[in-house]
Amino acid sequence: MAAESSAVRLLTFDVFGTVVDWRGSIAREAAAVAQSRGIKLDADAFADRWRAGYRPAMDRVRNGELPWINIDRLHRMILDELLPQFGLGGLTEAERVHFNRAWHRLEPWPDSVAGLTRLKRKFVLATLSNGNVALLTNMAKHAALPWDCILSAELFHHYKPDPQTYLGAAEMLDVTPAQTMMVAAHEDDLIAARAAGLSTAFVRRPREFGTRPGYDLPRDRSFDYVADNFEDLASQLGV
Amino acid sequence: MAAESSAVRLLTFDVFGTVVDWRGSIAREAAAVAQSRGIKLDADAFADRWRAGYRPAMDRVRNGELPWINIDRLHRMILDELLPQFGLGGLTEAERVHFNRAWHRLEPWPDSVAGLTRLKRKFVLATLSNGNVALLTNMAKHAALPWDCILSAELFHHYKPDPQTYLGAAEMLDVTPAQTMMVAAHEDDLIAARAAGLSTAFVRRPREFGTRPGYDLPRDRSFDYVADNFEDLASQLGV
Repeated sequence: MAAESSAVRLLTFDVFGTVVDWRGSIAREAAAVAQSRGIKLDADAFADRWRAGYRPAMDRVRNGELPWINIDRLHRMILDELLPQFGLGGLTEAERVHFNRAWHRLEPWPDSVAGLTRLKRKFVLATLSNGNVALLTNMAKHAALPWDCILSAELFHHYKPDPQTYLGAAEMLDVTPAQTMMVAAHEDDLIAARAAGLSTAFVRRPREFGTRPGYDLPRDRSFDYVADNFEDLASQLGV
Repeated sequence: MAAESSAVRLLTFDVFGTVVDWRGSIAREAAAVAQSRGIKLDADAFADRWRAGYRPAMDRVRNGELPWINIDRLHRMILDELLPQFGLGGLTEAERVHFNRAWHRLEPWPDSVAGLTRLKRKFVLATLSNGNVALLTNMAKHAALPWDCILSAELFHHYKPDPQTYLGAAEMLDVTPAQTMMVAAHEDDLIAARAAGLSTAFVRRPREFGTRPGYDLPRDRSFDYVADNFEDLASQLGV
């Protein structure tokens, strides 16, 4: 047996925006809901507003202001606030439950499944998302994402970018932080992962926020890899 | 939206003995280790002894006598006691680490992959094993087991048959206990799952303990399903 190597064995993936197109998927479901009720809706704005509520809600958990609440429940709290503002306050409980689960049905970017399938040949692939386990599991089944393991902030009762998430993922899969690489389209996630001792791969997702600029090329130039998509990342990692 | 249905959506699987042939796999690795050292070994007896230490060690955790310790560490504690008794006390630390990971490399029963692949079309499939997450993830990769999600006693810090494991699995995948079916080759596991409100499927694994009798047909005749293997279970469940 060789001494413990620092070669990367585990890839942990941010999911919303990095693997799946949350904005396009949510906008499509919102448009369909509005249409079925005969209501005019700016579906992109609805998706942006729903997502915009997520970080402040999560930060209240991170700061200890709220006890642990999973993302399904945070999404639902935000949804219940948003619906009346968009003329959709009449949705029934069952309709709200179904709409909230739109986050379980997000569509992958075009390269996601093929790229992950290649990467899986060489690495252990795990989600490391603020999404809860049920959400990530249902999404993987919906979108045929070939994860080896579903890991979530929910398992650690800490949301990213808390270090407990990155360190917890490595520990749970019995590798060192140095043997783990965080893959994300967001700099704050990678900067926190790097501070915890992980390697980092930035994946460009210029369409995550529609046509708004940003997140195309990282301002931070010291990530270990910068890739155009998962196929490119697989090629750069020699798979 | 229909009212919440009690139809089963999630299948949770015991793994050691139910999905994989731990005894044959461990005996093969033990025989190889002994042969490489020129030592005669009763490999089946070695496998049985290693496994026999697991329940009392786990019960010490369940009773609160020991703090939470995962199965990799319990296996290692037992291994370190066994090796000198079988003339293998000279194994190095790296060799022990590798040997202990034989539990990550267990081989599936012949029907496991095909049966799970069929069942996955209709149900969410999750492990629910006392094995730790790293062990189950590495095993799935080794044996191509198509889980939707890796769940483990480790996530709940309770070992089966504690009810927290069955209830925790359902909750984590956002289904009710009634929407969950435990699949196992062991009656005690199914009896505890049933007491927690889950449905139950007994799968016959008459070779789990080699040629010793037992565990072929359940004494308890009130499990919801009794199947010869996973292909048979898929057929009975209409997949």
